[in-house]
Amino acid sequence: MSGAVQLWCAVVRVLPQHTSRVYGAAVAPTLLLASNRGPASFTDGTDGDPVVRPGGGGLVSALSGVNGTSDALWVCAALTDADRRGVRRHPRRLPVEAPTAVRMLDVDPVVFDRAYNDVANSTLWFVSHLLYATPSEPVFDALSRRAWEDYRSYDAAFADALAEEAAPGATVLVQDYHLSLTPRQLRARRDDVRIGHFTHTPWAPPEYFCLLPDGMAREVLLGLLGADAVGFLSRRWADAFVDCCVAVLGAQRVDGGVRCEGRTTRVDVHPLGVDAAELRARAARADVRDRVAALRELAGDRQVVLRVDRTELSKNIVRGLLAYRELLVTRPEWHRRVVHVALAYPSRHDLPAYREYTGAVQRVAREINSEFGTEGWQPVVLEVRDDYARSLASFVVADVLLVNPLRDGMNLVAKEGPVLSERGLSLVLSREAGAADELADDAFVVNPFDVSATAEALHEALRQPPDERRARTDRLADAATRLPPSSWLAAQRAALAHPSH
Amino acid sequence: MSGAVQLWCAVVRVLPQHTSRVYGAAVAPTLLLASNRGPASFTDGTDGDPVVRPGGGGLVSALSGVNGTSDALWVCAALTDADRRGVRRHPRRLPVEAPTAVRMLDVDPVVFDRAYNDVANSTLWFVSHLLYATPSEPVFDALSRRAWEDYRSYDAAFADALAEEAAPGATVLVQDYHLSLTPRQLRARRDDVRIGHFTHTPWAPPEYFCLLPDGMAREVLLGLLGADAVGFLSRRWADAFVDCCVAVLGAQRVDGGVRCEGRTTRVDVHPLGVDAAELRARAARADVRDRVAALRELAGDRQVVLRVDRTELSKNIVRGLLAYRELLVTRPEWHRRVVHVALAYPSRHDLPAYREYTGAVQRVAREINSEFGTEGWQPVVLEVRDDYARSLASFVVADVLLVNPLRDGMNLVAKEGPVLSERGLSLVLSREAGAADELADDAFVVNPFDVSATAEALHEALRQPPDERRARTDRLADAATRLPPSSWLAAQRAALAHPSH
Repeated sequence: MSGAVQLWCAVVRVLPQHTSRVYGAAVAPTLLLASNRGPASFTDGTDGDPVVRPGGGGLVSALSGVNGTSDALWVCAALTDADRRGVRRHPRRLPVEAPTAVRMLDVDPVVFDRAYNDVANSTLWFVSHLLYATPSEPVFDALSRRAWEDYRSYDAAFADALAEEAAPGATVLVQDYHLSLTPRQLRARRDDVRIGHFTHTPWAPPEYFCLLPDGMAREVLLGLLGADAVGFLSRRWADAFVDCCVAVLGAQRVDGGVRCEGRTTRVDVHPLGVDAAELRARAARADVRDRVAALRELAGDRQVVLRVDRTELSKNIVRGLLAYRELLVTRPEWHRRVVHVALAYPSRHDLPAYREYTGAVQRVAREINSEFGTEGWQPVVLEVRDDYARSLASFVVADVLLVNPLRDGMNLVAKEGPVLSERGLSLVLSREAGAADELADDAFVVNPFDVSATAEALHEALRQPPDERRARTDRLADAATRLPPSSWLAAQRAALAHPSH
Repeated sequence: MSGAVQLWCAVVRVLPQHTSRVYGAAVAPTLLLASNRGPASFTDGTDGDPVVRPGGGGLVSALSGVNGTSDALWVCAALTDADRRGVRRHPRRLPVEAPTAVRMLDVDPVVFDRAYNDVANSTLWFVSHLLYATPSEPVFDALSRRAWEDYRSYDAAFADALAEEAAPGATVLVQDYHLSLTPRQLRARRDDVRIGHFTHTPWAPPEYFCLLPDGMAREVLLGLLGADAVGFLSRRWADAFVDCCVAVLGAQRVDGGVRCEGRTTRVDVHPLGVDAAELRARAARADVRDRVAALRELAGDRQVVLRVDRTELSKNIVRGLLAYRELLVTRPEWHRRVVHVALAYPSRHDLPAYREYTGAVQRVAREINSEFGTEGWQPVVLEVRDDYARSLASFVVADVLLVNPLRDGMNLVAKEGPVLSERGLSLVLSREAGAADELADDAFVVNPFDVSATAEALHEALRQPPDERRARTDRLADAATRLPPSSWLAAQRAALAHPSH
């Protein structure tokens, strides 16, 4: 998992069991959150009526650790047909017990599809992760213009709802690349509120960001600059954002931020970490312990090289497998002494490139097993069915954790693994993950495009002495838990208490 | 055409008919040129014996305009089997009349193939033009390591020959990305010579350049920094190179150059232009005039939208066709009043991606003709057979010239068109071409990924009034001829006369 999805999952994982709370608070909210995916969703009940379920998405535990959330409101979008049926019955507040009240927006499904799939996930995500095959993509034509208008109206639906709901002087925290235009749109409607925006993805350098049509590029940057403070997961992404503002808008670098069109926007770095206590409590439950036992039986006395990802183009699963193959070729001493457990969960299967990528992952895994496998030794164990308890269990037993994204806002897998590891694990980490800022000192850092160097790092990781592994894992866990979700959210709120106008 | 190939072609075009000159000068050369492709090549004669032909590559006219070339030597590689047979008979000097003596290197064909195809054209070219589909390419593995070793020994073969040949204190001008390691290798062999390197491609920003394995990235940068002066076609590429030196090597920016490992290397921009007199003389010949007449008959009273390119991934031919299609959709007033002449010459057909790209170009052209064509009007005339005289003729008759590369060191087509245009032409030019530095003021500048904006620029270009078109074309031609090849070469030599140690 990664970027925003990773965040949501991470936060949901540490979600305390909800206590009862009124869900239709009558007072105007003074703290508002806005995100594409919300903390609740609908499913169709047995009688065909939509039933709401809490826990579909994050920030909730972060909120529960912060004072003054009883008058908080979370604004999110209906993502499925069941959501749409549900929200039509409950247009102002979902009937859900959560740390905040929830308002779900009923956006036209065609508009949503273009905004979410065509713009957010096929354009802005690709730009920020440098994923395009540039000779053929992107193509910005009349169709993409129409999708952009849908993205604009989707973001405006959030701005409308936030403007309608917010108490005077309220704080509004807008999340991620789905809603990059919302801060400016909200500013135009309500100049009294304090607006923050947080980006969970990387940011592209100007030469790549400028693949976007001029108008879109300006709108995205000005959209974010409508906030009083914008936040990023790494100094690299924050700097790239400022570089883009300077190159595209002619904005001015100022201490701690950027100045454009007479306004100054703070630019901060809040490197989200994990909540160790919550994570360990979850991993202590029976479903995880059962899977720990099963994984230990599977591994026997072999070392486990683990990866856990959505099957996302930026996650670099194929090169990870190729590196493991090169390890087996160049270091035959590991034959039968290691097993690669690759948990690669489905992602964005409505996009053809993602379906093809999943096929490539499965193909390479099969090839390795057929090339090197022996009676009693299957070199790669690839699992493509999502199983959260198994992911946690795998962190407990892994000896080496491979996290090699091409580019990643943060990557919380790299932080969760060391926290849950029982005997210590060696982390092989891409330098292109935001997490490398904090974890590089105790990891084997690799260039994710360099399969040979990754193979060599796996070798070094496998032969790391247990004491060294243990000591490094402890330091990694410390670094990983330095800014748990509640502190991360508090930092965003504090930045808005001191905007730099 | 583009980058180095474009340069060679451009220079060869303005090549004066060779006057006789001894080809085996006995004195040690004081000026040496090194390039992958040389000014002569072999073909198999009727009796099977290899026959040498001059004119296979450039810089020659540039040389002929410079003093002191009678003791110059050009070092190049055998590119074909015929070349290899020829050079085995003439290992020290080719029996060719040229402004310089020529020494061709007999590099092992397997080594050459890996150095030229795998490293230079499939790696360094892709990096500098940002062409990778990053989810799947590049993959740096054991195979690419071996190819890199071949590239290193290929470049070393040049360094060996140059070190062996050069007179004490000689000037050595090394050309392009095929030979990025040669300057440092030569420096290690001969510290008395003055070494220049010139890059004909763009340069990647550090975030993209660092796709290369660390060792390769360092070697390329240190390789170039082995020169006393390095040159680029645009300030953008020069700045990106220095940025990479700072980011990767920890080098130090100094006035006019970069300092690393105790040495300072000048970094200059020499924006190569065209030689108007030579180009016009060539276009006045009968073969070109015949084709002018044929093209005029083809066009009738329609305006001609022209493009002339190698079918190179960076040239963006498919999006150019898509922009033309969008023009026909959104501006139906141009139906039957315009014809798009697309000259797309074969390029690098030993690389599968290039063959596929050629197929895509042909497919989109067919689709447009079948969608919009009528009795008596074929909207797209696509020519894939190389015909230099036809290219020149097309510049003479074009009304609009479309030059929309994704990224291009310079792009001399954008400079040749205005020089040869008879009635004036409107230039639609990518902002990602180095030529935009000098030509932007009088062109319709476009984002090459933005098909809609390119369609709109074509519309504006087609409706530009004749007087305005004429005036702008004259200014474009002035700008295009400001630094003809002879001055460009002189500038490189002058930079070496004042190195910044």
